[in-house]
Amino acid sequence: MNFKAVLKALGMLLVCEALLMIFPLVVAIYFQGTDISAFFLSILITGLFGVLLSQIKTGKKIMYARDGFAIVSLGWILLSLFGSLPYLISGVIPSFIDSFFEAVSGFTTTSASILTHIEDLPKGILFWRSFTHWAGGMGVIVLTLAMLPSVGSGTVQMLKAEYPGPTPGKLVPQVKETAKILYKIYLFFTLLEIIILKLAGLPLYDAFIHTFGTVGTGGASNMNASVGAYNNINVEVIITIFTFMCGTNFTLYYQILKGDFKAPFKDDEFRFYSVVIITSIILITFNLYGDIFSSLWESLRHSSFQVVSVMTTTGFATTDYNNWGMFSKTILLILMFIGGCSGSTGGALKSIRVLLLLRVMKRELLQVIHPRAVYSVRLGNKTVDEKTISEILGFFFMYILIFMVAVLIISLDNLDWATTITAAVASLGNIGPGFGIVGPMGNYSIFSDLSKLVLSLCMIIGRLEIYPILLLGIPSFWKKTNL
Amino acid sequence: MNFKAVLKALGMLLVCEALLMIFPLVVAIYFQGTDISAFFLSILITGLFGVLLSQIKTGKKIMYARDGFAIVSLGWILLSLFGSLPYLISGVIPSFIDSFFEAVSGFTTTSASILTHIEDLPKGILFWRSFTHWAGGMGVIVLTLAMLPSVGSGTVQMLKAEYPGPTPGKLVPQVKETAKILYKIYLFFTLLEIIILKLAGLPLYDAFIHTFGTVGTGGASNMNASVGAYNNINVEVIITIFTFMCGTNFTLYYQILKGDFKAPFKDDEFRFYSVVIITSIILITFNLYGDIFSSLWESLRHSSFQVVSVMTTTGFATTDYNNWGMFSKTILLILMFIGGCSGSTGGALKSIRVLLLLRVMKRELLQVIHPRAVYSVRLGNKTVDEKTISEILGFFFMYILIFMVAVLIISLDNLDWATTITAAVASLGNIGPGFGIVGPMGNYSIFSDLSKLVLSLCMIIGRLEIYPILLLGIPSFWKKTNL
Repeated sequence: MNFKAVLKALGMLLVCEALLMIFPLVVAIYFQGTDISAFFLSILITGLFGVLLSQIKTGKKIMYARDGFAIVSLGWILLSLFGSLPYLISGVIPSFIDSFFEAVSGFTTTSASILTHIEDLPKGILFWRSFTHWAGGMGVIVLTLAMLPSVGSGTVQMLKAEYPGPTPGKLVPQVKETAKILYKIYLFFTLLEIIILKLAGLPLYDAFIHTFGTVGTGGASNMNASVGAYNNINVEVIITIFTFMCGTNFTLYYQILKGDFKAPFKDDEFRFYSVVIITSIILITFNLYGDIFSSLWESLRHSSFQVVSVMTTTGFATTDYNNWGMFSKTILLILMFIGGCSGSTGGALKSIRVLLLLRVMKRELLQVIHPRAVYSVRLGNKTVDEKTISEILGFFFMYILIFMVAVLIISLDNLDWATTITAAVASLGNIGPGFGIVGPMGNYSIFSDLSKLVLSLCMIIGRLEIYPILLLGIPSFWKKTNL
Repeated sequence: MNFKAVLKALGMLLVCEALLMIFPLVVAIYFQGTDISAFFLSILITGLFGVLLSQIKTGKKIMYARDGFAIVSLGWILLSLFGSLPYLISGVIPSFIDSFFEAVSGFTTTSASILTHIEDLPKGILFWRSFTHWAGGMGVIVLTLAMLPSVGSGTVQMLKAEYPGPTPGKLVPQVKETAKILYKIYLFFTLLEIIILKLAGLPLYDAFIHTFGTVGTGGASNMNASVGAYNNINVEVIITIFTFMCGTNFTLYYQILKGDFKAPFKDDEFRFYSVVIITSIILITFNLYGDIFSSLWESLRHSSFQVVSVMTTTGFATTDYNNWGMFSKTILLILMFIGGCSGSTGGALKSIRVLLLLRVMKRELLQVIHPRAVYSVRLGNKTVDEKTISEILGFFFMYILIFMVAVLIISLDNLDWATTITAAVASLGNIGPGFGIVGPMGNYSIFSDLSKLVLSLCMIIGRLEIYPILLLGIPSFWKKTNL
């Protein structure tokens, strides 16, 4: 690893974080909360560390793939460590592990929370919590673009190659251009939703909070009862539409901007994502009608909000779906594994992987019947190469394995099945709320410190699509690069 | 498909089944039970159908891979259909679906049961139930050999090839030779265990029943409280050792017979299987000590029996492990996915697949760090080829997918999480008891007919390693072969 270059990059990340903290500071000052000094101090500490690290002199600017992975994985951990300072210093969360958990949950756009009386907390703190969703979502969009295995994109192969390059100098401009456009779309969605939510009757502060949670598909609310607290159908519809939009691949909007209005309808992943959502909504609506909701309309209202919220791995809630029938709950559980589209702020396995896995399965069956025929797995009008298929299959196994290991460790807390299993699912998939004690009206405070650390790790692993974090555990990853 | 040849083979299978039913008939007559006439009738009906079908004139004896798959999948279903006759006709199980479920559970060596008052049932019926485990186990050993994807065996590729051959004439002698030896070992284990169990104090009848359940890794008992009913430590140790042995690849015994006594210790899968079992026993022993059992010895006794029983997918129990701590239960749940060795009577994913998946995962991580290095996945001193790896990865995905679909359908019964999830795991993995209502002291009677059918299907799918059953759902599988 090129330690100096990695540390320098991490330093610059911390400087960015210190700058980001100015926003909650402004909010704290505006509301004259008890958290003003906490933000001052946090900015000082974070900024100081950042400036110090970013002064490191790097030699030649040669960076390898693993340096990129190191920046991403260590960066996310470091952002969370310093991001926990406001919680800790303000005394809102007295325990370090809890603060870290909450910060990780923020930056990974998960919204698993150990907080219990949300409404009583200082406004600056809650703003920071939601703002980390927004920042995390922003990071993820570019990350997908630049770093992570994504079908059809050449960038992965590029970064995987161990040639003494791509130097940041070569790589950056290309990614930077696309990133700029995606950021503009992200910002546009943010502003648009804030305005519309305000018009729908939310206080401006609440509009900000829920917008951050929506566009980052995070899901933290400033209300204990989440979006359900407003009981405002307009707000629910707006949030449903925006979460749906932000669970969609952002490059599709780029194509629409370029005039290709049919782009989403031609996109296999988007069609799959939509079909899964619509089917789930219909099934749940009819499953709950009569049993849980007396009117079909009410049933549709809550089921559509919840399905979109879970599938996009956001985690907002309008009702306690813990009380729903097992069939509806199982559908939600399955959606927690599937997740949003690639290139979106959503987490979990991602729709595209699940779609491809299903196509691979069909191919395998046909192959057994007709061994001499040649079947290819297609996506759009391209053939997916075998290497990618094998990577996705491998990814699926790793995802399930990590999930099982997480369940095993948190089972030491001796809680019920629903809580033990879905805490791991909801953390790894960056959803936030699961079922049982960690249901939409519950929280994660019951877990031991060990479990909270494991779940924090799950959130980061899930958010960074496994590889960057697992690599940290392999000794040769840490070997110094000879320049 | 070569319909005539397939039907003829199925007919011969039914004749075999009719012959097998003579054994429980003898038992019924000996005990002068109420089930004598039921067996008479069942033998008549099964035999008649069998003889009729086996008279079919086939043309040229050319069979394709898919004909083999058809015989296996339809055969298992047909055996279960006719195998349910004794339950139905004797009136022990009045419902057809329930009888079918019980018969499937028998032949797939699962032991998921809808029966509630076991001790009150006619001895012939209980004998039949356990005898189907034994026959099923016998079938599986040869099946693995001849048909199913197994690493390092050339037979799969042979059968997958669509060349106008392998004619049964070419294939059979080779498989037949090996099968004969394995059958002898199987028979030897059976007789040995019956004798030892008898010496340990079990009534002869009970010794038979539990031996069938052991060597077939089935797990049906003639006691409601399973093996726990005897509270006999010797019996428990004997059964533990024999289940462990029968969860091991039978070809290893063949190698031992040929003088290679180190064969098991050189076998990667056997080592993995043993390490997983020993580690699980240690973890559970310490987890339960103090909380559930006051003596370390008691804790070790029950944990080792249960771990081996679950890992080999047998399903006997000495205690109600539903009451154990969540950590121990989670370990058992994970073992339910892993399962026994390939070439054994055990079910689930199989140790060898899990071992290879773990090695593939390690390889993938190393590959990311050193993209230019070439890593191969090894098993023993052979390199596993990429096609096999991709097949195993695909198998894993299908297994989890089928599991999830099963959970979704049985969730319509609106039972608790533990029951809903583990009923599917325990059926698909051919274990039998799960947790919750389907725990070791519970049963499957609570489920709806739809769920029972789905779970029956899961048992067969799991037993036949997915492909043969899924192929039935593909239209081109049914296309008539042009000869």
